[in-house]
Amino acid sequence: MRASGRAADEMRPIEMIPGFSKHAEGSCLVKFGDTHVLVTATFEDRGPPWLRDSGKGWITAEYGMLPRATHDRTGREAARGKQTGRTQEIQRLIGRSLRAIADLSALGERQIRVDCDVLQADGGTRTASISGAYVALHQCAHWMYNEGWLERKPLSDSVAAVSCGLVDGQPALDLDYVEDSGASTDANFVLTGQGGIVEIQSTAEEDPFTEEEFLRLLRLARIGCDTIRQAQDTAIRSYAG
Amino acid sequence: MRASGRAADEMRPIEMIPGFSKHAEGSCLVKFGDTHVLVTATFEDRGPPWLRDSGKGWITAEYGMLPRATHDRTGREAARGKQTGRTQEIQRLIGRSLRAIADLSALGERQIRVDCDVLQADGGTRTASISGAYVALHQCAHWMYNEGWLERKPLSDSVAAVSCGLVDGQPALDLDYVEDSGASTDANFVLTGQGGIVEIQSTAEEDPFTEEEFLRLLRLARIGCDTIRQAQDTAIRSYAG
Amino acid sequence: MRASGRAADEMRPIEMIPGFSKHAEGSCLVKFGDTHVLVTATFEDRGPPWLRDSGKGWITAEYGMLPRATHDRTGREAARGKQTGRTQEIQRLIGRSLRAIADLSALGERQIRVDCDVLQADGGTRTASISGAYVALHQCAHWMYNEGWLERKPLSDSVAAVSCGLVDGQPALDLDYVEDSGASTDANFVLTGQGGIVEIQSTAEEDPFTEEEFLRLLRLARIGCDTIRQAQDTAIRSYAG
Amino acid sequence: MRASGRAADEMRPIEMIPGFSKHAEGSCLVKFGDTHVLVTATFEDRGPPWLRDSGKGWITAEYGMLPRATHDRTGREAARGKQTGRTQEIQRLIGRSLRAIADLSALGERQIRVDCDVLQADGGTRTASISGAYVALHQCAHWMYNEGWLERKPLSDSVAAVSCGLVDGQPALDLDYVEDSGASTDANFVLTGQGGIVEIQSTAEEDPFTEEEFLRLLRLARIGCDTIRQAQDTAIRSYAG
Amino acid sequence: MRASGRAADEMRPIEMIPGFSKHAEGSCLVKFGDTHVLVTATFEDRGPPWLRDSGKGWITAEYGMLPRATHDRTGREAARGKQTGRTQEIQRLIGRSLRAIADLSALGERQIRVDCDVLQADGGTRTASISGAYVALHQCAHWMYNEGWLERKPLSDSVAAVSCGLVDGQPALDLDYVEDSGASTDANFVLTGQGGIVEIQSTAEEDPFTEEEFLRLLRLARIGCDTIRQAQDTAIRSYAG
Amino acid sequence: MRASGRAADEMRPIEMIPGFSKHAEGSCLVKFGDTHVLVTATFEDRGPPWLRDSGKGWITAEYGMLPRATHDRTGREAARGKQTGRTQEIQRLIGRSLRAIADLSALGERQIRVDCDVLQADGGTRTASISGAYVALHQCAHWMYNEGWLERKPLSDSVAAVSCGLVDGQPALDLDYVEDSGASTDANFVLTGQGGIVEIQSTAEEDPFTEEEFLRLLRLARIGCDTIRQAQDTAIRSYAG
Repeated sequence: MRASGRAADEMRPIEMIPGFSKHAEGSCLVKFGDTHVLVTATFEDRGPPWLRDSGKGWITAEYGMLPRATHDRTGREAARGKQTGRTQEIQRLIGRSLRAIADLSALGERQIRVDCDVLQADGGTRTASISGAYVALHQCAHWMYNEGWLERKPLSDSVAAVSCGLVDGQPALDLDYVEDSGASTDANFVLTGQGGIVEIQSTAEEDPFTEEEFLRLLRLARIGCDTIRQAQDTAIRSYAG
Repeated sequence: MRASGRAADEMRPIEMIPGFSKHAEGSCLVKFGDTHVLVTATFEDRGPPWLRDSGKGWITAEYGMLPRATHDRTGREAARGKQTGRTQEIQRLIGRSLRAIADLSALGERQIRVDCDVLQADGGTRTASISGAYVALHQCAHWMYNEGWLERKPLSDSVAAVSCGLVDGQPALDLDYVEDSGASTDANFVLTGQGGIVEIQSTAEEDPFTEEEFLRLLRLARIGCDTIRQAQDTAIRSYAG
Repeated sequence: MRASGRAADEMRPIEMIPGFSKHAEGSCLVKFGDTHVLVTATFEDRGPPWLRDSGKGWITAEYGMLPRATHDRTGREAARGKQTGRTQEIQRLIGRSLRAIADLSALGERQIRVDCDVLQADGGTRTASISGAYVALHQCAHWMYNEGWLERKPLSDSVAAVSCGLVDGQPALDLDYVEDSGASTDANFVLTGQGGIVEIQSTAEEDPFTEEEFLRLLRLARIGCDTIRQAQDTAIRSYAG
Repeated sequence: MRASGRAADEMRPIEMIPGFSKHAEGSCLVKFGDTHVLVTATFEDRGPPWLRDSGKGWITAEYGMLPRATHDRTGREAARGKQTGRTQEIQRLIGRSLRAIADLSALGERQIRVDCDVLQADGGTRTASISGAYVALHQCAHWMYNEGWLERKPLSDSVAAVSCGLVDGQPALDLDYVEDSGASTDANFVLTGQGGIVEIQSTAEEDPFTEEEFLRLLRLARIGCDTIRQAQDTAIRSYAG
Repeated sequence: MRASGRAADEMRPIEMIPGFSKHAEGSCLVKFGDTHVLVTATFEDRGPPWLRDSGKGWITAEYGMLPRATHDRTGREAARGKQTGRTQEIQRLIGRSLRAIADLSALGERQIRVDCDVLQADGGTRTASISGAYVALHQCAHWMYNEGWLERKPLSDSVAAVSCGLVDGQPALDLDYVEDSGASTDANFVLTGQGGIVEIQSTAEEDPFTEEEFLRLLRLARIGCDTIRQAQDTAIRSYAG
Repeated sequence: MRASGRAADEMRPIEMIPGFSKHAEGSCLVKFGDTHVLVTATFEDRGPPWLRDSGKGWITAEYGMLPRATHDRTGREAARGKQTGRTQEIQRLIGRSLRAIADLSALGERQIRVDCDVLQADGGTRTASISGAYVALHQCAHWMYNEGWLERKPLSDSVAAVSCGLVDGQPALDLDYVEDSGASTDANFVLTGQGGIVEIQSTAEEDPFTEEEFLRLLRLARIGCDTIRQAQDTAIRSYAG
């Protein structure tokens, strides 16, 4: 039994509110327990410079955290004049994860910019971001298709992400902040709805981990991503019928 | 009659949700119609360097806008590596407005950092920020007093802000984005609950304005700030009894 | 009687030297007592990118202060790598004030860049800047017209600015540094030669101010701007006949 | 058979020259084929601020690439004024990998700064960096111990890293630049000499990968890291007997 | 005969106005023809960190140019967020030149900051800066001695600088902007009042120059620096008797 | 006799390895004793913007130092976000020196970027950089000519650089770090193979120097540059026959 009362393979309550933003072509407020991320997807009718005349589009992501999303206040990146390495690492991960399930040729030379802004943080902000970003991206693609920008739908699969870790030597799913801080190994998995692996990032915080331990974390991740996918499906059905 | 159907002296619906944030000592989600700002107030047990040994504290503010809070996406300030002049102007205004109703000696050598982050923008983000910031600041001061950090309460009055303008030659209260874009004069007023004036910023966007026009805007601002003050009072009573 | 011996409604001695700069199309060294600002206006035969194909031009301003313009040395902004919020606020104000009296269509797709550099500061640098900038701008427009760049004159009115404040509870005109530091309310007014109001910025430094106090400051500003306008007229006649 | 003529599980020729730098307490020029990285380890007799009074030390890493280390010239980060997200991601990875095999308490409140500078790049610069950094770190720790800064040796294990990937659908070890560019999945593994896993980063560049494919890459990584460890041992024996 | 009508060994008219600034401990407005530089010297009662406990002081310089000091407007360094290489090169040169004639021990652990700001440029801004900076520095040292900060006078010699060059193959003294732009060799000399050489910077803009040509430029520099020294002496006598 | 055992007019051992880099069109690892600099020359088939339609090309240089090239570690410029004034001064010097012996019209509208990166520093890094850069530049020009990019060879002369100084009152050639730190005068000379002078930078670190002393340093520089030119010739013959 974990401190939170959850079972080892139990996700925190998931909530996904698509269309949360008045202005964006796609958006989703995603909650994994007390971790709340507002994701928007913005359509742009031109691609990045390096894809000019390629016929292909692009999906990119940015990530930010409100200063008091965290337990102690974190200095505002805009005020310090640069993004931390952590921020850049996360936004690169989100972008890669979304592109992995997209057919960039189907977009034509257009770009979708996904913004993930953490309103409140309690562990797992990057995995909640990816999971919510899929919904915002889907809504944006849905809008593009309905508005006649696309000839075919650009998403061939869904994508979800979850963190797992070894806490007090035990594998646990969807770590909250307290668990994450105390975990000896921390792993983030990005999986598609069809079961493919998009990204694995597994890090020993103290002692190295074994292959067996790693595989147990992967098992948990599959369970968690199934749960997330169901929440994603429900969110998508609410506007896409 | 305005495009929105509002009367000239009619505010948009106001909503204030104190304690919106799990972590912050004070917080408030404030809505002026479709303008939504999340304000947090963070307590720090040390003042800024320039007040060392003065016995006085400080209240400072930062302001930001999520990239897709606006109709078109605005580049992320953290990514561009600096805050715009507009952002700096607004956060300086918010800080001054809050300090105007505070007894900085009552804080001792401590600091309260107020963060105003616009989740969705539809005109009047700076005035909504100030109005919500008062609630977050009050809640933070309330917490400090209850926790024994303060010997006396540091806020001697309340503060609210509203924008007014000349739209199609007619004075109007609490401009939304469309009205603001078309206004020939735009004025922001910061008033205290007891009727004092803290700040006036009135700008001719095209033709200069007259003293009479200005005074009519000030009349509207008094009406608007009364309405805001009632919403603030309700919000405060919800946690302070 | 004020510490300086001036009456409440008395400006400091004003001096305006147009054509101070050898290179600029328009320039003016303006002195309000010990506050000295060198203003240049630079003609550019292309407008800013966002006005392309609009047929309209632009007037923009930058502001700076020599490091030892002030009583204590202020760090050089170029060395620190960014402009302060105060600098940005001031240069935005100067630009708005000048555009308010200009017919931007008469410029065609061209730009005038106004640079205000404070050589010596003793309070009121932003109001001296605006007042001198009008002369430099006028001289630049005069040059453009004479050189055949313009079909009609782009300035329809003149503009001047002055600071007022409550010092020891008494309204006073054109505050010097010592008065400004001790004022409980500080207000900057930008007025046109025909009496229109372009901008009001009025701030309570400590206690809020009343509407009556504010109106007394506005009265003083009208007196001050009349005096400035006469100095501007004299300066302009010296080269424009 | 791969384009380079190597077998699937064959590393490029490895060369490690410890003590390459005249000034540094530890250093190693490491070559994985045409990828050449100069690593130095610098001893500092004080730890980072956040470990003050903890009794513990720190190991941190920075990473850079000479502009023409790459096939096409890459702009110099110092000239552009900031490090890319890729650079920050890599230097965070190197630091974590080294700390995973170190006893930070044994360092006392001291810091070792590891600099990895790529002189020539042909794929796998981050894994060559980690592998060479272990030698430079070891030499620095050896020096510290001999000089009497340490009471006990701070490294409890060795660490090595290698990249693997799916090239034309086939698993391959230690990808060079051409292979890396064409790989559908790219994985970096950081393993200890005793077989523990410190970090896994596995990314689908196009299609998702399967668990089985991933495990085959892990097998190759174990083979590669064994080879690297032997080169490390040889290098260390050259100065440590 | 030069385009300006000057003889080969003739300086432009020199003007030096000490005490030009109201606030600074030392100041000088220096004019070499149409090149005008405002120099201030600021006293600080603490040295730079790297001289702590050395008993020695420091003299440092900064250099800037108003945007429209030049024929075409130059972008403001503060707005671009960094100083150019040229600016940094010049301010390092000014600082070295002043330190070369100062007894830093006589200053005690104090610093003098010299700011050279070019109000109008017509060639030779760095040499005018150094020459005027000597007067401002002298006035500041004079003030420090009179105020009792110093036990002995810190300046043992005077320093002046001038540019020379090969224009149309002929050596010429004190180049103006037009001459400087067309010179095939450009040399700056910093000489002391007693005839010692502090700095030589001689650059071939196109073809290399010969030793003989160089020596002829040095002869001219000696003549020019004599003239400058007389202007410096006159300026100094005006306040130091 | 110097501390190093060298005679006053004796260079340190010089080594030049052309073609050191696998990717660059020209490259040279140059060693002046323990000072090691890796120079690459990169061909770009377009010139800088300011030479568009001029028919001329450009040669530019950048300079950097690995953090632990120095005895104590120097902070990485990329991490600090800007290049120091020293770095900018050096890279401007290198660029000027190379352009002085090149016929920029012969390049056409193309650019050669020279990167000088100091792997290990022991005094004289800028003069070693220039001397090695000549070889890398030559090799790049050789490549361009052979590949058919050029109609005629663009280098009309060779260029070399060396530092001299007064150490303990005695002139000495090619100062190492210890000598350089203790020299009372430090001079860098850039000379062409035909004996012309491209650049002189001579600085009094403490007391001013005399013309006679200066001329003795120039004599030494001629001796040193002869030696360097022989090493350059040998290096060039190794690939150019």
